[in-house]
Amino acid sequence: MSVLTAAADRSVCAPLPVLGRDVTVPLVTGDEVTYAALDYAASAPALQRVWDDVAAYAPYYGSVHRGAGYLSRLSTDLFENARKTVAEFLDCRDGDEVIFTRSTTDSLNLLAATLPADCRVFVFETEHHASLLPWREARVTYLDAPRSARQAVQTLERALADRAPSPSSQLRSSEGGPNGPALVCVTGASNVTGELWPVRELAAAAHAHGARIVLDAAQLAPHHPVSVRDLDVDWVAFSGHKLYAPFGSGVLAGRADWLREAEPYLAGGGASRRVTRRTDGGVDVEWHETAARHEAGSPNVIGAYSIAAACRVLTEAGFASLVAREQNLIRKVRDGLAEIPEVTVLSLFGDDAPRVGVISFVVEGWNSSRFAAALSAEYGIGVRDGLFCAHPLVRTLLGSDPQTQGECGAPETAPGEQSLHAIRVSFGAGTPDEHVERFVRAVGELVGDGARREQSGR
Amino acid sequence: MSVLTAAADRSVCAPLPVLGRDVTVPLVTGDEVTYAALDYAASAPALQRVWDDVAAYAPYYGSVHRGAGYLSRLSTDLFENARKTVAEFLDCRDGDEVIFTRSTTDSLNLLAATLPADCRVFVFETEHHASLLPWREARVTYLDAPRSARQAVQTLERALADRAPSPSSQLRSSEGGPNGPALVCVTGASNVTGELWPVRELAAAAHAHGARIVLDAAQLAPHHPVSVRDLDVDWVAFSGHKLYAPFGSGVLAGRADWLREAEPYLAGGGASRRVTRRTDGGVDVEWHETAARHEAGSPNVIGAYSIAAACRVLTEAGFASLVAREQNLIRKVRDGLAEIPEVTVLSLFGDDAPRVGVISFVVEGWNSSRFAAALSAEYGIGVRDGLFCAHPLVRTLLGSDPQTQGECGAPETAPGEQSLHAIRVSFGAGTPDEHVERFVRAVGELVGDGARREQSGR
Repeated sequence: MSVLTAAADRSVCAPLPVLGRDVTVPLVTGDEVTYAALDYAASAPALQRVWDDVAAYAPYYGSVHRGAGYLSRLSTDLFENARKTVAEFLDCRDGDEVIFTRSTTDSLNLLAATLPADCRVFVFETEHHASLLPWREARVTYLDAPRSARQAVQTLERALADRAPSPSSQLRSSEGGPNGPALVCVTGASNVTGELWPVRELAAAAHAHGARIVLDAAQLAPHHPVSVRDLDVDWVAFSGHKLYAPFGSGVLAGRADWLREAEPYLAGGGASRRVTRRTDGGVDVEWHETAARHEAGSPNVIGAYSIAAACRVLTEAGFASLVAREQNLIRKVRDGLAEIPEVTVLSLFGDDAPRVGVISFVVEGWNSSRFAAALSAEYGIGVRDGLFCAHPLVRTLLGSDPQTQGECGAPETAPGEQSLHAIRVSFGAGTPDEHVERFVRAVGELVGDGARREQSGR
Repeated sequence: MSVLTAAADRSVCAPLPVLGRDVTVPLVTGDEVTYAALDYAASAPALQRVWDDVAAYAPYYGSVHRGAGYLSRLSTDLFENARKTVAEFLDCRDGDEVIFTRSTTDSLNLLAATLPADCRVFVFETEHHASLLPWREARVTYLDAPRSARQAVQTLERALADRAPSPSSQLRSSEGGPNGPALVCVTGASNVTGELWPVRELAAAAHAHGARIVLDAAQLAPHHPVSVRDLDVDWVAFSGHKLYAPFGSGVLAGRADWLREAEPYLAGGGASRRVTRRTDGGVDVEWHETAARHEAGSPNVIGAYSIAAACRVLTEAGFASLVAREQNLIRKVRDGLAEIPEVTVLSLFGDDAPRVGVISFVVEGWNSSRFAAALSAEYGIGVRDGLFCAHPLVRTLLGSDPQTQGECGAPETAPGEQSLHAIRVSFGAGTPDEHVERFVRAVGELVGDGARREQSGR
């Protein structure tokens, strides 16, 4: 974590301007306060400069790849240059593809559709559902939650070493060695605990055992530099809407071979190079082999362009100073919550683990849903409560019984009852200190006030 | 076509303001002219009011379905209300689902993933690749290009009647009757000729033979009212970016049953209601049953909201007057081109067929790519040349040999050589008369100038 170390030496920059920074919301008291958006891990506000770039481009919007007009050629250039910007942002290798998808979920579903036959998938139970579920027909090994970064690597190594030879591995190419092809999918930063996973070490373990690895960088890329080359991951996926560019696009970037050999993700125009009717009445299709193969339909130019704009702004601001700022905010929140005995912060890897600005917790005696609602109604603070689309992880962290636990985002506990869900506060490059300070104060006041509320029947 | 008739009686409204209406582009002469965007069929400019709505909302953007904060709840309301607006715009039936996808291509790929086992698909060879290709494992019958609306209905009826019983139809529910389930996919308006297809009659034929029907309204919805109820189609698909809302979203709307019974289109958060680790180490998933089932990942709120905004603007403007305006523009273009003997307008159904503002043509002695480039460089007009992602149709219309014909969007003919591709001019609610007048004048001048150009070696 060299950036984390370097960051400590730097002076802390101001928050990057984001849309909505002046928006006020009503409180139950009738007052208005500026909204404290502390749900960045779900979706972050647009960077002001991303919005400005989109607004400046919008009048020049034109059909891409398809038109002879000036604006069509301009838009095509912007779209293809967006790929290059993203490739630089991710420090991709020569020959890596950058495919614009709609989100991380979409990126991982696309990758799942490219798995070679008999590919095994290895995924920790601690993953977001977007990483946990897309593998469909593949044989998936779900790995138990590790309690340290080191244990994560050991757990993966053991599972990869123990995998039985693939039934068809002798018939296939050398992919994956004698045990056949395998893919590891791992998050860079947990969407529940914010803890960083040992991606480089996991990648080394995967490759040592003839497996490939995809990095779910949805929660990492907005907070931390991601180098495909240094981490030596085969693919990386992230979402624009968590990277301050909420215009419906995401990215899958990495090795071209599986992508090129797979059926097109969507079938349609743009992906098809030549379509001909056969004399027997059928239809023959030649598909493109590069990114266009998996981008059928008119591309979301504004979405791709907005991601490229965000990459430029973050690069220009410099991750060293962004990380330094965020680490200060994390410290404020964690130190503040540590002083409230009723609060338990959820963690897999312990207090010393490196992390991004995503912190989940429960409050003794409080239903998390009611607590989150009170933060909104009484303090104008937007957080999230629930299971965060990572049900097995949250249950493991809470030690709760899956049978008694409700749905994602729809807590079922009664008011006042101990919650089976958690509360998550998350922030990033646009968050001013005042938001997290207000949050820490609010938690303290709500907890201190708790007994009185219960007595008065609220 | 009652709207077409009614429209003739109305006074013609002004074009709806769109972004880019004042953008100027350079000509080869060094002059600048306002850009004439005449490639609406590929992608239309954003309506000014759609942009204004998006810009007004953007500071209030928040995570949907997932947050307790004020902006999250606001955004969730906007997103779910967008569904209702789209359902009203399409005149959906009670119980129909509205699913936000990324495009028409995506919508039809989604529907393809919901086909019951052994479902037959019937599709005319004249369709856009987005309608022609998504059916993958289904047994597809490609129907020859009809030469009249009546012949289209007859062709479909014959094909449906002739289909052999499905091998498993006796084992299944009554879906599709004795011959098993079948789906017809048909465009509402051709993306090449602009001609309207007899959707209501095709739907009646499909239903009479136990088949269902999906309407590809990508080229119809921006130009013409679409009533799912009146047309009696089972599903309809369209794209935001052709409906003046280029923010990366599309729509699939219609019957809930196949959608509910199918595997989720994308696997991930949002689509999954409950995920639990089993005692044997595996994972159990309960999926949502309504639209969320097929919308995994964070929804593109801005995309959905922009589509709803476009639906409101078009409804408020009134299709009767929009159609009247567009019919005037069509008349100007067609009358103008008819006076140039070197121009051949492509048509399946003949001069009297009802149509939208999409017109393709070839110019004798001209390579279409060079012609389109000249329209851009010398007149600031953006059109498209190529095969328009409808290769079999364009070849049928041109009577060309597929073996000698190049790729979509990448014409291979040499300069001066007769083109194997066509030129398409298309327009809509934002097009001022001046654009089509300039276009007609430009075609005439380029054609008149053609011989001289060839002599001078240009």
